[in-house]
Amino acid sequence: MKVIIINGPNLNLLGKRNPGVYGDVSFDSYFKELKQSFESLHLDSYHSNVEGEIINKLQEVDGGYDYVILNGGGYTHTSVAIADCIEAIDIPVIEVHISNIYSREKFRKTSLFSSFCAGSIVGLGLDGYRLAINHIIHA
Amino acid sequence: MKVIIINGPNLNLLGKRNPGVYGDVSFDSYFKELKQSFESLHLDSYHSNVEGEIINKLQEVDGGYDYVILNGGGYTHTSVAIADCIEAIDIPVIEVHISNIYSREKFRKTSLFSSFCAGSIVGLGLDGYRLAINHIIHA
Amino acid sequence: MKVIIINGPNLNLLGKRNPGVYGDVSFDSYFKELKQSFESLHLDSYHSNVEGEIINKLQEVDGGYDYVILNGGGYTHTSVAIADCIEAIDIPVIEVHISNIYSREKFRKTSLFSSFCAGSIVGLGLDGYRLAINHIIHA
Amino acid sequence: MKVIIINGPNLNLLGKRNPGVYGDVSFDSYFKELKQSFESLHLDSYHSNVEGEIINKLQEVDGGYDYVILNGGGYTHTSVAIADCIEAIDIPVIEVHISNIYSREKFRKTSLFSSFCAGSIVGLGLDGYRLAINHIIHA
Amino acid sequence: MKVIIINGPNLNLLGKRNPGVYGDVSFDSYFKELKQSFESLHLDSYHSNVEGEIINKLQEVDGGYDYVILNGGGYTHTSVAIADCIEAIDIPVIEVHISNIYSREKFRKTSLFSSFCAGSIVGLGLDGYRLAINHIIHA
Amino acid sequence: MKVIIINGPNLNLLGKRNPGVYGDVSFDSYFKELKQSFESLHLDSYHSNVEGEIINKLQEVDGGYDYVILNGGGYTHTSVAIADCIEAIDIPVIEVHISNIYSREKFRKTSLFSSFCAGSIVGLGLDGYRLAINHIIHA
Amino acid sequence: MKVIIINGPNLNLLGKRNPGVYGDVSFDSYFKELKQSFESLHLDSYHSNVEGEIINKLQEVDGGYDYVILNGGGYTHTSVAIADCIEAIDIPVIEVHISNIYSREKFRKTSLFSSFCAGSIVGLGLDGYRLAINHIIHA
Amino acid sequence: MKVIIINGPNLNLLGKRNPGVYGDVSFDSYFKELKQSFESLHLDSYHSNVEGEIINKLQEVDGGYDYVILNGGGYTHTSVAIADCIEAIDIPVIEVHISNIYSREKFRKTSLFSSFCAGSIVGLGLDGYRLAINHIIHA
Amino acid sequence: MKVIIINGPNLNLLGKRNPGVYGDVSFDSYFKELKQSFESLHLDSYHSNVEGEIINKLQEVDGGYDYVILNGGGYTHTSVAIADCIEAIDIPVIEVHISNIYSREKFRKTSLFSSFCAGSIVGLGLDGYRLAINHIIHA
Amino acid sequence: MKVIIINGPNLNLLGKRNPGVYGDVSFDSYFKELKQSFESLHLDSYHSNVEGEIINKLQEVDGGYDYVILNGGGYTHTSVAIADCIEAIDIPVIEVHISNIYSREKFRKTSLFSSFCAGSIVGLGLDGYRLAINHIIHA
Amino acid sequence: MKVIIINGPNLNLLGKRNPGVYGDVSFDSYFKELKQSFESLHLDSYHSNVEGEIINKLQEVDGGYDYVILNGGGYTHTSVAIADCIEAIDIPVIEVHISNIYSREKFRKTSLFSSFCAGSIVGLGLDGYRLAINHIIHA
Amino acid sequence: MKVIIINGPNLNLLGKRNPGVYGDVSFDSYFKELKQSFESLHLDSYHSNVEGEIINKLQEVDGGYDYVILNGGGYTHTSVAIADCIEAIDIPVIEVHISNIYSREKFRKTSLFSSFCAGSIVGLGLDGYRLAINHIIHA
Repeated sequence: MKVIIINGPNLNLLGKRNPGVYGDVSFDSYFKELKQSFESLHLDSYHSNVEGEIINKLQEVDGGYDYVILNGGGYTHTSVAIADCIEAIDIPVIEVHISNIYSREKFRKTSLFSSFCAGSIVGLGLDGYRLAINHIIHA
Repeated sequence: MKVIIINGPNLNLLGKRNPGVYGDVSFDSYFKELKQSFESLHLDSYHSNVEGEIINKLQEVDGGYDYVILNGGGYTHTSVAIADCIEAIDIPVIEVHISNIYSREKFRKTSLFSSFCAGSIVGLGLDGYRLAINHIIHA
Repeated sequence: MKVIIINGPNLNLLGKRNPGVYGDVSFDSYFKELKQSFESLHLDSYHSNVEGEIINKLQEVDGGYDYVILNGGGYTHTSVAIADCIEAIDIPVIEVHISNIYSREKFRKTSLFSSFCAGSIVGLGLDGYRLAINHIIHA
Repeated sequence: MKVIIINGPNLNLLGKRNPGVYGDVSFDSYFKELKQSFESLHLDSYHSNVEGEIINKLQEVDGGYDYVILNGGGYTHTSVAIADCIEAIDIPVIEVHISNIYSREKFRKTSLFSSFCAGSIVGLGLDGYRLAINHIIHA
Repeated sequence: MKVIIINGPNLNLLGKRNPGVYGDVSFDSYFKELKQSFESLHLDSYHSNVEGEIINKLQEVDGGYDYVILNGGGYTHTSVAIADCIEAIDIPVIEVHISNIYSREKFRKTSLFSSFCAGSIVGLGLDGYRLAINHIIHA
Repeated sequence: MKVIIINGPNLNLLGKRNPGVYGDVSFDSYFKELKQSFESLHLDSYHSNVEGEIINKLQEVDGGYDYVILNGGGYTHTSVAIADCIEAIDIPVIEVHISNIYSREKFRKTSLFSSFCAGSIVGLGLDGYRLAINHIIHA
Repeated sequence: MKVIIINGPNLNLLGKRNPGVYGDVSFDSYFKELKQSFESLHLDSYHSNVEGEIINKLQEVDGGYDYVILNGGGYTHTSVAIADCIEAIDIPVIEVHISNIYSREKFRKTSLFSSFCAGSIVGLGLDGYRLAINHIIHA
Repeated sequence: MKVIIINGPNLNLLGKRNPGVYGDVSFDSYFKELKQSFESLHLDSYHSNVEGEIINKLQEVDGGYDYVILNGGGYTHTSVAIADCIEAIDIPVIEVHISNIYSREKFRKTSLFSSFCAGSIVGLGLDGYRLAINHIIHA
Repeated sequence: MKVIIINGPNLNLLGKRNPGVYGDVSFDSYFKELKQSFESLHLDSYHSNVEGEIINKLQEVDGGYDYVILNGGGYTHTSVAIADCIEAIDIPVIEVHISNIYSREKFRKTSLFSSFCAGSIVGLGLDGYRLAINHIIHA
Repeated sequence: MKVIIINGPNLNLLGKRNPGVYGDVSFDSYFKELKQSFESLHLDSYHSNVEGEIINKLQEVDGGYDYVILNGGGYTHTSVAIADCIEAIDIPVIEVHISNIYSREKFRKTSLFSSFCAGSIVGLGLDGYRLAINHIIHA
Repeated sequence: MKVIIINGPNLNLLGKRNPGVYGDVSFDSYFKELKQSFESLHLDSYHSNVEGEIINKLQEVDGGYDYVILNGGGYTHTSVAIADCIEAIDIPVIEVHISNIYSREKFRKTSLFSSFCAGSIVGLGLDGYRLAINHIIHA
Repeated sequence: MKVIIINGPNLNLLGKRNPGVYGDVSFDSYFKELKQSFESLHLDSYHSNVEGEIINKLQEVDGGYDYVILNGGGYTHTSVAIADCIEAIDIPVIEVHISNIYSREKFRKTSLFSSFCAGSIVGLGLDGYRLAINHIIHA
């Protein structure tokens, strides 16, 4: 089974910024642990701050992977183009958000991606990525 | 560790109605399996169709349990009173929805509870309950 | 054929309050006459001021009755939970309102139930209940 | 007693279009049966696709008839001019819609006529016309 | 003179939760003092978390009491059914809110009850109950 | 100088309906007096309940008359087509409303015509027609 | 008969600013002519840029004058306090606007005063003042 | 193949009004050329300023023609009744607008017809009619 | 203890206008009684129709008085400037409204001041002023 | 004459995804045919999933080409930056959409580009590209 | 060159209130320094809490000064009358706000003045006044 | 001190397009002069049309520079992702817009960046960049 985690804008700052909100673990060190926990799984990760490159990657993995775990960051609330792509490709996408997007500004309360995703895990910290994989394996 | 699953209106119909959407497993038989998977955990469940009785139960378990897993059903979108209660009590609440509420009617796209919950798991079927417990144990 | 009339909040005040708007006949004496007019029909009635108890009753009569005639009172405009229940059960529901809800405050102009009901009779007074039954028999 | 049924735009297509939604009975053959069921009643019908001609007819029958049964079709949602006319004339108007207008597009969920009508029967098929007459006789 | 204070959802938590906002006095001990201050008055209190039970109580006290002092809690912002009941009964209702509902979330800024109440006292703490009684006696 | 008064839907009911609001003078007898007051003027009038016939008339008088005085009735609030026509033709149009449209329902507070008219006289009764002519002569 | 014209903010700039829109006649010289045209009338005028002084003046003339002609300028769209005053006093108020307020920015399309005024004359230039007086005399 | 162009309100003014926007060619002379360009096609045209007559014509050509090219003019933004008709009939409809409706007032930015049409050609001048036919032939 | 009552626009009309709504007692005679009831208190009052003068007074009494009781009249719904001032000064402000502002027009349902005030007393007539003082003394 | 077709996000999936909606022809093979049909024309095409690269390309072709045919995909509904670019450059842009964007989700019903484009062709399938070129040649 | 700084409501409290937000420097002492920094400039300042007096001053300085620097305080968000005045006068106006108005309540995010001003400097503290002058001199 | 100016989409067209609005000076020649005026400062500039590359650059300069001056162009109104980045990084950002964004289309009146920026300078032309630097040096 092949799974890829795709992280959107500013998620490369994890562990460096706002440690009160996001903790002090970088995504890279978290990802290393994650791979060790799921050794039987082929697990990759990708990050880009560019909306269109996230689309490129989603199109590229379609067919070659079994699942995408997507944290779209700020594009979650504005990108019809990524939402179109999730709808167009065959590979199922699970949406993850580290913090509780529903307790922030109003424009952050809508996800354009949710209705095209298999499901969403929100506000459970980095553990959301692990739960998504746990669900994929369990399914 | 003591955990209680509280289910809101119409969730007692699980397995009997709309099997295409919700599967053909009743919550009771699902819950029996769930208890067996987490034997070390004290796991209870409660269901009511009455908004105020859900508030009564939330107030009652506060202090006595470590976690609530709440599927508020239709009250998710309308009940300021339950939202107030989640905010008032000390016990952390994880929100679960079986189907993807974001791909349905517009008034179903808002959860009044989310901003007071520790996190939300949406659209991953009955497996959302299991993931919530998995997260609680892992935390 | 078994039919049940379910009345929501404050409809037990019929005949006692606002006789200018609702007439001076109580629902009980009206219902007695109604039963006499339709002797061949098994006709029951139920009233509750509690949203969740209306859901309980709707779930209970599902399967055992052929039709529900529902006057949801104030819950008509706010209860997603009752609307969910009407959608979930198999028994057809006809919506009745005694007064013209469309000539009152703005929040009273929307019925959350209508789109899941077989039809609606609005503003024709207590006669709306009789017409609903007349339609059921005629159908 | 004199009653007239006034049908608005596209209702002349009944029985020819969308038989799944509206059935395969034309209004003319339905109306013939209706007249036979209510022989003691003077029952007329009128159809026009033109908004202003419906106003002309409403003004014309005012005084000469006891009741209007109006199915305004698409003008129901947009015509302030017909609503003004219903308000201005003395003859009571009962609104009928064949299909459930509340389960369709958003702009179809409002009736500009309702607040000036004696009552509304919605979603009960062609039987709505018969029920309206039944109510008139019974009143 | 007979007066009843009716408290809605979560007001039984007064003195136990959010002492910074609501103080550390429970409603019961506050109520004991209040009764002592107004010995000549027949003063009762009632609490329920259930919307419909508040309606039941309002209907029940109508006729038997001279005034209701109502703190509807979270139902203030959502319950058309309680608002209907306040409008329907003859007994005058004074609305009290302990904290300033206008300095909180947007959905808390509207009271569906206000327009049917004799008046409202908001944000003056538990003293709002005493002022309401003071007004009743003084009137 | 040639002037035409064009009256829209239901204005033929003037004097017959709602005498409390519109007075008991029919437009025809008012118009007779008006002609006598302005003998030097070529003054015509036209009425139709049909939106498109008002457009036909506006197009027809364009070029042949110096001014249109238009009371669009209910079409004032809904007809983009008449508004387009007023914008397209060269002849200046003065808008008249007999009653105060701003103190009625919300949808009556907007005139689609106003921004294409030379000016508007609202709420001054039938005298609005005379003032419009007075202005034309004075201009 | 005593009539007063009350002009609101920036109307003292008439004739000095935007001559393309408002002409090059100052209000003072226009008013001089107006007085001469209506010699039998006691005609006064008042101007202030201060909202509260317009209220002061409206209260002051109440009782002493027969009519107010009010051009509220920018306060037309924002002043609940002046609207309250127009509603409270007994003297009838006719609203005049020199330019067509309906063809400008959106926030200029609403007049808070209109629903409390006897009528409105809009977009007919300075002649609107004369027509208002003409109407008063004619009434 | 039989095709009919149906033009709505004010389109008979083409070539006479606003030549800067719509050019100085009348529809009739344009249509003459169009017929010559597509000699093998049976090409008709129809114009009415009356909403209901456009509905009459749409119903009439249904079955007898292969395509309708519809320029609904101002009814495009307001007529639910024409939209209903387009949805009801079997004949495919292509929507044409001569000028760019999207660069004008806000209420002009919505077409009630678009979602029931086969497609739309907007802002390409009279050439839109020719392109619609070109597409029909090519399809 | 020094307390000042500040009354906004049109409150000087109390007792002269709308006696059905506001009673027939002028504020001056009411205030005389109020001073007699609270002899130990230094009690002043101030009225202005001018928004900025209310700000001047609020700034002036800050430091010199212990409490302001403010009835902002029509400025309650529109004045960000007075709201800013209430927020800026140290002296606590209690908001009083004589009639029930929540049962009137929609724009009257919002108070810009409430969220910066210590509390609000609404709809209890002139007695609201007395209750505010009673609360101040009791606090 | 030089023309370039610029395709936005996900349009490289044409022919691979949703063949029911978009057909089973890839854009590349369609484009090959298109070039053959218009041999006298210099016809290029460009695709990018990246919003900013579409801006880069639009700026680059400005001056060197005579026309752009733009299918902005999902950016159509969200990109102020591309809209700014279309407005800034001199080269005329014709907007094409393959499917009927007006019959989909609400956020898809607005095009930020339309008001800056020469015109739009919507819902006529891949043939929209050919019609755009046909128009360019014919103009 | 003559420049005047006009400050609106509550700006006289600078340095006395909210020192955390606005610093502890009064406007008077800041203004003294400012004059010393720009000795070659004729620099005046004016403050009023009264909306109409700000209009008076703007009209008065028009013609006599070269620039106005305006901090409208709370009137920025509500005063159509001041906005009208800025539009009417010839003297250019630069808008200054000390704190970042965009990070506060929603009604503070709109400035009615901005579209009639030469430019705006927001959130840079008292230095905004100096920058405005620096720009004026540099222009 | 190190400062970088970051320009968003289409700002590379400065001096080439719309000289009436933006002047005929290119940003490059303006920037050369700017560097000469502030020789003691390390001043850099960066431009990209790609949203994500602006995020990349903001992340990159964080730590290495003292200030960012950001003109986000069209992304100002739509990019939650850039706004997130401004909030996340430590380096203070000053927002500059060359033209007055508040006097254009409605969607241009909101800046998603403002509430996370130190301040904003709008509508003062290219001089806004110089003023921002002047403020930085002066701070």
